[in-house]
Amino acid sequence: MAAHVTLTDEQRIDWLRLIRSDNVGPRTFRELINHFGGARAALDALPSLARRGGAAASRIASREDAERELAAARARGVTLVALGEPDYPARLVMIDDAPPLLAVRGEHSILTRHLVAIVGSRNASAAGMKFAARLARDLGNAGYGIVSGLARGIDAAAHRASLETGTIAVLAGGHERIYPAEHVPLVEEIVPNGAAVSEMPLTWEPRAHDFPRRNRIISGLSVGIIIVEAARRSGSLITARLAGEQGREVFAVPGSPLDPRAEGVNGLIKQGATMVTEAKDVIDALAPIVGRGFDLPIEEPERDGPAAAAEPSEDERGRIVALLGPSPCSIDDLVRLSRSSPAIVRMVLLELELAGRIERHGGGLVSLV
Amino acid sequence: MAAHVTLTDEQRIDWLRLIRSDNVGPRTFRELINHFGGARAALDALPSLARRGGAAASRIASREDAERELAAARARGVTLVALGEPDYPARLVMIDDAPPLLAVRGEHSILTRHLVAIVGSRNASAAGMKFAARLARDLGNAGYGIVSGLARGIDAAAHRASLETGTIAVLAGGHERIYPAEHVPLVEEIVPNGAAVSEMPLTWEPRAHDFPRRNRIISGLSVGIIIVEAARRSGSLITARLAGEQGREVFAVPGSPLDPRAEGVNGLIKQGATMVTEAKDVIDALAPIVGRGFDLPIEEPERDGPAAAAEPSEDERGRIVALLGPSPCSIDDLVRLSRSSPAIVRMVLLELELAGRIERHGGGLVSLV
Repeated sequence: MAAHVTLTDEQRIDWLRLIRSDNVGPRTFRELINHFGGARAALDALPSLARRGGAAASRIASREDAERELAAARARGVTLVALGEPDYPARLVMIDDAPPLLAVRGEHSILTRHLVAIVGSRNASAAGMKFAARLARDLGNAGYGIVSGLARGIDAAAHRASLETGTIAVLAGGHERIYPAEHVPLVEEIVPNGAAVSEMPLTWEPRAHDFPRRNRIISGLSVGIIIVEAARRSGSLITARLAGEQGREVFAVPGSPLDPRAEGVNGLIKQGATMVTEAKDVIDALAPIVGRGFDLPIEEPERDGPAAAAEPSEDERGRIVALLGPSPCSIDDLVRLSRSSPAIVRMVLLELELAGRIERHGGGLVSLV
Repeated sequence: MAAHVTLTDEQRIDWLRLIRSDNVGPRTFRELINHFGGARAALDALPSLARRGGAAASRIASREDAERELAAARARGVTLVALGEPDYPARLVMIDDAPPLLAVRGEHSILTRHLVAIVGSRNASAAGMKFAARLARDLGNAGYGIVSGLARGIDAAAHRASLETGTIAVLAGGHERIYPAEHVPLVEEIVPNGAAVSEMPLTWEPRAHDFPRRNRIISGLSVGIIIVEAARRSGSLITARLAGEQGREVFAVPGSPLDPRAEGVNGLIKQGATMVTEAKDVIDALAPIVGRGFDLPIEEPERDGPAAAAEPSEDERGRIVALLGPSPCSIDDLVRLSRSSPAIVRMVLLELELAGRIERHGGGLVSLV
């Protein structure tokens, strides 16, 4: 797949089936597409791969389910934008677990603008919300789209202050399960000039672990991320860590050491986050990055034809499985220690993943579940 | 003068006369002692030097005045400790405008301990004062003496929290002109375990420009200096700048960008000051510096015999004066451009200084007044 092509309706249904099948996350999706050259071939291979990985039966999303989801989305005004399509957010492509399909409601043009995330405590102080609003307004006027997580407190203040200049709410659940429910009207205010986006099915009820998962999209969309108030061990700090791992600029707004809501942000500044006391701090720091434009990912997510078949022998599979454990280990190490080819190792990992036996981490690390 | 000798009574009177004479500041004092080998010889040379520099008549402090000041100090329990004496604060020796004589009241042993300064706004917030007190208590318990400026707000909070572990109040005026007057009782609480110090005569009424002058002693005494609350363009920022020029560690306590009392401190952190949210931040940063012990100054402030006479000719003097202007220029440049020897240039500068015609700045810079 070259950059900026558009999927056919058939392809979009295949993509949706593949990402909605058991044990297929964004990283596995990319592996499968890269290996088999397309979603259709990957779907065909799924049952035997999962079986070889040791799964009894793995659910594959049906064509009917996918068609029903697409129709429901269309009825809601939600479009499924695929990785590589023109409307897919350019920076999000660069993270290794980018959602293959992003369900977008609203004004698509905001997705390809330069974006800055503003996040922070749900139980924010009045001063924190006021400052978040000021930053969002000033950065919006400077041309940035404002990304946040639609939570109470800092997130809502950032969205509200950038309704006119454009803001993106990244949802942890589906478009029909807005959380918190009191922010359903806020989404309606966001979509005329901005967007709500989700990688989950329309009716997905967000659970605790969907929030950190969502946070990687918040930072992945953005050039930089600003943490406004955050206690020690808060979700915003997880977002900050993810953002750092993704190579995004991390900014933090300082506060008094006597304010527990400032513990997290002050800690970030000690660890090297850029201190923000006005929008100019952010604009100045991002100017050289934004000026460079986007880097395209080195590896294209799809190839024209299917790859040469890589059929691991029982012996090879056993050797690779034996090397795995609960601690994450690198794929490079597996290749080296198993004396198998990279293609064989990747295939065995795919099988194990589809059987739900391994987990993929960032940086090319895998571990047994 | 070798390190750690004690002045005779006669020498102390000469030192006092010299530093109390017109146009003799701490830097000139050091130049004079270095050049003439002692205060007595310098006093003898003053009238002709000042005349050659172009002054009509320059007041030299009389022996009677000096004796009267010493007696009054003794009656007040104030001791004049000279640069190089065992009780003179070791770090203060290292600044190029160290007071030749420091009038000390209280427990001398605190002067030679490791010291940390805590300063900040006079109109501090309750939170700021609480945090200053917490830092002073924790650093006091960690073995540091606490230095501050006896002002209202942050300074007073820092002193009060370290009365037992030991604190030093650096006065802008003389010991008999405590400012603000409401802190006279605080000084009485400080002196049993700490000290009040001043470079000014006992009855000196502090004026506006005596405060920045005093601030160089606050930072000069200390290994590091912590600014707790400071608005933009506040005196504490001047202290921070001086401290940086003196090679002291500069620490700042962050605050909300919406709090005007945090503008200065947040600005310091942006410029590279170490952020402090607990005493441990300071202790950790200072540990390697304190562990190194004190460096002795390279140039001893006094020599055994008088230097070879350096008699500038009229021609040389004229050439050097012509090179000077209202913008500070370096002594090295004067030597180079005047093609005179360093000894001659220094002598001409001494003459001009004693005549009140030039001002010395840090870093070997001088300018016409």
